Amino acid sequence: MKIGILGTGIVARTLAAKLAEREQDVMLGTRNVARTMERRADDVYGNPPFRVWRGQHPDVELGTFAESAEHGELVGHATAGAVSLEALNLVGEEHLDGKVLVDVSNPLDFSRGFPPSLTVCNTDSLAEQIQRAFPRARVVKTLNTTNAYVMVNPREVADGDHHVFVSGNDAEAKAQVTDLLKDWLGWKHVIDLGDITTARGVEMLLPLWIQLRGAIQSPMFNFKVVAAGRPQP
Amino acid sequence: MKIGILGTGIVARTLAAKLAEREQDVMLGTRNVARTMERRADDVYGNPPFRVWRGQHPDVELGTFAESAEHGELVGHATAGAVSLEALNLVGEEHLDGKVLVDVSNPLDFSRGFPPSLTVCNTDSLAEQIQRAFPRARVVKTLNTTNAYVMVNPREVADGDHHVFVSGNDAEAKAQVTDLLKDWLGWKHVIDLGDITTARGVEMLLPLWIQLRGAIQSPMFNFKVVAAGRPQP
Repeated sequence: MKIGILGTGIVARTLAAKLAEREQDVMLGTRNVARTMERRADDVYGNPPFRVWRGQHPDVELGTFAESAEHGELVGHATAGAVSLEALNLVGEEHLDGKVLVDVSNPLDFSRGFPPSLTVCNTDSLAEQIQRAFPRARVVKTLNTTNAYVMVNPREVADGDHHVFVSGNDAEAKAQVTDLLKDWLGWKHVIDLGDITTARGVEMLLPLWIQLRGAIQSPMFNFKVVAAGRPQP
Repeated sequence: MKIGILGTGIVARTLAAKLAEREQDVMLGTRNVARTMERRADDVYGNPPFRVWRGQHPDVELGTFAESAEHGELVGHATAGAVSLEALNLVGEEHLDGKVLVDVSNPLDFSRGFPPSLTVCNTDSLAEQIQRAFPRARVVKTLNTTNAYVMVNPREVADGDHHVFVSGNDAEAKAQVTDLLKDWLGWKHVIDLGDITTARGVEMLLPLWIQLRGAIQSPMFNFKVVAAGRPQP
């Protein structure tokens, strides 16, 4: 499948590498291709500059946000949440019309330092803002509740016995994303939370995730929903 | 131990009944004792009026908020989050001085219907507001992430193999509460998240909890934190 992934950070790279390994045709999207390839410094998280990663992954293409979205039959969104809406403005609505737009981002606000707060929460969410900005895209929120490495290697934590969530207004889009999470990434348990407003819950999970990352001293964890008296969803 | 629990709703009742069963000396606190005992209607959740419950639990005392706090060597807070600060104003600061104040409440705002939003979140939390209102109390946030029945019967879900969290500025208070969670209520796994600001994370878990309650169609569930390559905390 042709896949566009908006973003060139660690989440976009990790997803792209795994999907390319699964023989999908992936194009990452960025604001300015030349500038992204010229960068020589590590990013704020200590990840190497994009061109280093690109050298190791020649099978992944790089284009503008618009080219990446146009390329994709399915489009992923993995830009930094605080600048997502601005980045998405550069995509061009026509390149997302009718497409499944998988939003894996988090609206983290680092402007007051660490730990970050959220740029939007409680009565709205980044996923809802994106759905409103692209009313003809079929937005599915997922994967934002785990570390990038766990996203694509869920079985390295407790043999995959934990949960990922999907939120969205389009049942068919959620079903397709659920299949891809299982087939391409190896997820065992996917819970459909409901419409796109339920993205508020998974985005608001981030503060607890960040605190647990400190308490556990590792990002290699996830949440398992355990219930009494009935099989796991 | 003498215990005061502020509140007479389902959470306060459920905790009081369990602690009385464990032979602790419990006094619930309310704004107006006579009015609470006179109520004849079910509450908004369909729970019977307080006097019916009281008839079944004659070993649990009822007093004003101030009497309940004064009674307790340890004080629990289980009033409805949206009115908590107003209720706590009636307690009298001197009755909480130096005491462990266990806050199990959630700042749910039902004013726009269901699902509720939160009255405070992101850069503050109800637990922090309470700690600021009572700077000499030793506030520990815990148990707000599960249903009242699961709070006191954790082993009825997956034999207790799931997590509860504690947040607070006083390490000794958190250690004491952790012991009580295990000894009195039967919790197996307690994670110390850090200082009272980490209560933001557990309070912001509520929207996801409410969505999962709908997806699972039961309140009898909880979160288990699963991590790779190290024993569970």
